Amino acid sequence: MSGEFDLIRQYFTRKTPAVSVGVGDDCAVFNVPAGTQLATSTDLLLEGRHFFSDVSPYALGHKALAVNLSDLAAMGAKPAGCLLGIGLPELDNKWLEAFSAGFYDLANKHACPLIGGDTTRSEQGIVISVTVFGSVTPPLLTRSSAKENDDIWVSGNLGAADVALSLLMRLNRGQVLDKAETALLEKTRSCLETPIPRVELGMSLHNLAHAVIDISDGLLQDLGHILKASAKGAVLYASQLPVNPFIAGLDQEAVLKAVLGGGDVYELCFTAPPAVRDRILQKGSELGIPVSRVGSITAETGLKVLNEDLIEIHNLPYGFDHFR
Amino acid sequence: MSGEFDLIRQYFTRKTPAVSVGVGDDCAVFNVPAGTQLATSTDLLLEGRHFFSDVSPYALGHKALAVNLSDLAAMGAKPAGCLLGIGLPELDNKWLEAFSAGFYDLANKHACPLIGGDTTRSEQGIVISVTVFGSVTPPLLTRSSAKENDDIWVSGNLGAADVALSLLMRLNRGQVLDKAETALLEKTRSCLETPIPRVELGMSLHNLAHAVIDISDGLLQDLGHILKASAKGAVLYASQLPVNPFIAGLDQEAVLKAVLGGGDVYELCFTAPPAVRDRILQKGSELGIPVSRVGSITAETGLKVLNEDLIEIHNLPYGFDHFR
Repeated sequence: MSGEFDLIRQYFTRKTPAVSVGVGDDCAVFNVPAGTQLATSTDLLLEGRHFFSDVSPYALGHKALAVNLSDLAAMGAKPAGCLLGIGLPELDNKWLEAFSAGFYDLANKHACPLIGGDTTRSEQGIVISVTVFGSVTPPLLTRSSAKENDDIWVSGNLGAADVALSLLMRLNRGQVLDKAETALLEKTRSCLETPIPRVELGMSLHNLAHAVIDISDGLLQDLGHILKASAKGAVLYASQLPVNPFIAGLDQEAVLKAVLGGGDVYELCFTAPPAVRDRILQKGSELGIPVSRVGSITAETGLKVLNEDLIEIHNLPYGFDHFR
Repeated sequence: MSGEFDLIRQYFTRKTPAVSVGVGDDCAVFNVPAGTQLATSTDLLLEGRHFFSDVSPYALGHKALAVNLSDLAAMGAKPAGCLLGIGLPELDNKWLEAFSAGFYDLANKHACPLIGGDTTRSEQGIVISVTVFGSVTPPLLTRSSAKENDDIWVSGNLGAADVALSLLMRLNRGQVLDKAETALLEKTRSCLETPIPRVELGMSLHNLAHAVIDISDGLLQDLGHILKASAKGAVLYASQLPVNPFIAGLDQEAVLKAVLGGGDVYELCFTAPPAVRDRILQKGSELGIPVSRVGSITAETGLKVLNEDLIEIHNLPYGFDHFR
């Protein structure tokens, strides 16, 4: 009941007309459309682990929701609402204003109202927990649905977030970047800090794609999740991988590492039968999202990456692991 | 993909046959029963803020889910499932085994399967985020539904958790407890560390109670939330308040402070018309949960506590505030 505590909450209590009970009761309550199932996902973002303490609060508010919307996208779900748990070491009105603006701007864009949550003081760093809800109808775009001979597709382009992260980590360790590196960081930073969740693309893949995943840990690792769940293998063609244009000038080993192993991308990787190639290209074109066909699902398990001469590349980098 | 990271997740991937998609995909997916609405709530538990680092991991697993189930109880919702986000500074198999056992034991008791979540390394303390889902049908037991002349009820008894917390905080500051205090801590500690969410009672209040809240911040503060949301006032009779028997021997000012202001209780406080008194007593009796009638809702706003002589008690303690 103190003024301090009320202060935090006031940033997260905008009206939510689409729900029965919104922010401020024991539970939020809403309707799930008849004939649909509820899809839900939750992600923790911890200071020092998932973001640096000096990150722009607007970008952090955006990203906290974006990584969760990306999980809905990977299930082809239509966003229905979200919950925010936030622990802060201190009250900072400017910070809260920017954070909530970043969060609400993205929530509004995807009609995903903030309907409840929890606010608390944290004795340590900033803690953010977001849970999203969406509605889906079968057939579900699960990781286990990949079929032999499916094409493997990737949306957008890859590698920029990983390059930005490496540069920021060097800055954070007190290293000085040269002029070219500083320019590269400026160009790639938004890919890391304000990723775009592919919600509309995910929804449009319903009845087209088989298996879908969002690239949070790195293409190899996330495609690996599909392969493991589907008991299949894959061949990827390195020359077909969509490389972010800002990093294309780096040496080829660094590019391949960033594209295959770089996490925090939030593009979709999906499999679909060759018969729907044209329809997928058309969906991408309608939405203004590039989609690239980068490989095939094989009956034989294992994941191979082939170079331009169709020779296997060995010693591949692996994806981000939260406990590495 | 590393062994370390897989290790954590393995503790939270028990089979969940009742859902379409459980742990291990981008989203969990489940059906909401036709004709019902979805109720959902989320709570953050942070080391150093909501629990001490030496708390029993079994108790912590229990409590992390219990405080969320208590929110469902306060909405009269039937549990449907939950998500767990957990950040840990280090891998400790014994700790994880006990924590997951505490969590699953309570989840199984309330048919509330763990269907998804997020695991990560925390650079600072232990971070736990739980989100619960349940189904409800109107009329909803919202905080804003209290009516003039409603009785005010409280389940179970009050005060023990607050006394245990005070004793533990003294221990944590290096103070020594005397023999009586040590015995008192032993008797009251379970109220603080393994509270029982009143899920069945909440469900049984459907079509009986008007407003319901769970006592997480303290009776005065939580009843205050009902009064504010309902634009009503209340009179409480101090002599009718159900005092935990283990603390009844303390001096009366300490008892009143613990009972009126003590948080972390997770009993229900609810309002209901006098016409259903007998039915409420019968529900409590059927469930083996004591229910006490402790006051009345008034048209005039404000909250008064009267002593045995019906004289107002002033200088009341207030409930737990997360940013005090």
